[in-house]
Amino acid sequence: MATSIRLFDEKGFKGTSIQDLVNEIDVTKGTFYYYFTTKEELLYMIHYDFINSLLDKETKLLKDIKKNCKEKLYGIVLILIMEIKNRRHSARIFFREMRHLNDVHLLNILSKRDQFRINLQELIEIGIKNNEFREDFRADILSFAILGVVNWSYFWYDPNGSVNEVELTETYVNLILNGLNK
Amino acid sequence: MATSIRLFDEKGFKGTSIQDLVNEIDVTKGTFYYYFTTKEELLYMIHYDFINSLLDKETKLLKDIKKNCKEKLYGIVLILIMEIKNRRHSARIFFREMRHLNDVHLLNILSKRDQFRINLQELIEIGIKNNEFREDFRADILSFAILGVVNWSYFWYDPNGSVNEVELTETYVNLILNGLNK
Repeated sequence: MATSIRLFDEKGFKGTSIQDLVNEIDVTKGTFYYYFTTKEELLYMIHYDFINSLLDKETKLLKDIKKNCKEKLYGIVLILIMEIKNRRHSARIFFREMRHLNDVHLLNILSKRDQFRINLQELIEIGIKNNEFREDFRADILSFAILGVVNWSYFWYDPNGSVNEVELTETYVNLILNGLNK
Repeated sequence: MATSIRLFDEKGFKGTSIQDLVNEIDVTKGTFYYYFTTKEELLYMIHYDFINSLLDKETKLLKDIKKNCKEKLYGIVLILIMEIKNRRHSARIFFREMRHLNDVHLLNILSKRDQFRINLQELIEIGIKNNEFREDFRADILSFAILGVVNWSYFWYDPNGSVNEVELTETYVNLILNGLNK
């Protein structure tokens, strides 16, 4: 799976054959078919693994009764930014190669991805009721906007550059909470 | 080009053959090769057209001496959001299929894409000097964050849904300028 994640990211799902995969780790095609029925099934497992681990972390964070909504918002942004350092290749496959999943697998992944966003939307709704957040925004649009800021980082952010993950998370949350206005 | 934009979006660049293209518009492969040397050249022209038209609009907007930095920021967001209605397929190809460009073409497209972002970064820097924007943010990170909010819309926003392009632009700019804090 680690090899396929790297190859799919470098050459794309369509551009990587099962032969490329087994050559890379020096096993036979028979070994591949012992574990997976198709290349698509392998792609599905990469997607499943990625979104499931994100959902687990988000769910644990949202259950933390010691944190207010702002702190939980910070936590969700940090979870996503940390994945760039730890799972950059998987993240890019997640965003680029989804259309190669079959219909049943795609529905399953999309519903989990939706769940991650809906949890954020509900957090914003609670924050509005709690008087932590302004009540004149639509929570659904805000959830997309926040995920946009954060997920876009996969396409440009280098965790080994001049800004570390915590600094990037703080900048994002500062912008989202306080805005750019002087 | 219009047919290839639709097919590349539906089936991917790799998944669309020149035969698929010429079948769809009822011409011969000879006709295709009269206009393009390769399928990659066609992909490059889609990319070139898309980013060039965005850069033109941004450059005109930034030259407008009657607008302050906040109004120009609003204008840049609106330019990008309007493209979703008008050029949804091109936009998705732009984000998904870039890696199929050859090295020379890729460099050319990336430098234009960078230019669009750098223009936004310079606008933020001017706004900081003008006292329109806070001075405690890094303008480069902000430019990526703003493009993240806006570009992410390509993956979820339906211009025929309950929020129109102007309302979406106003929500984004309101969030970016004023933040979510009560």
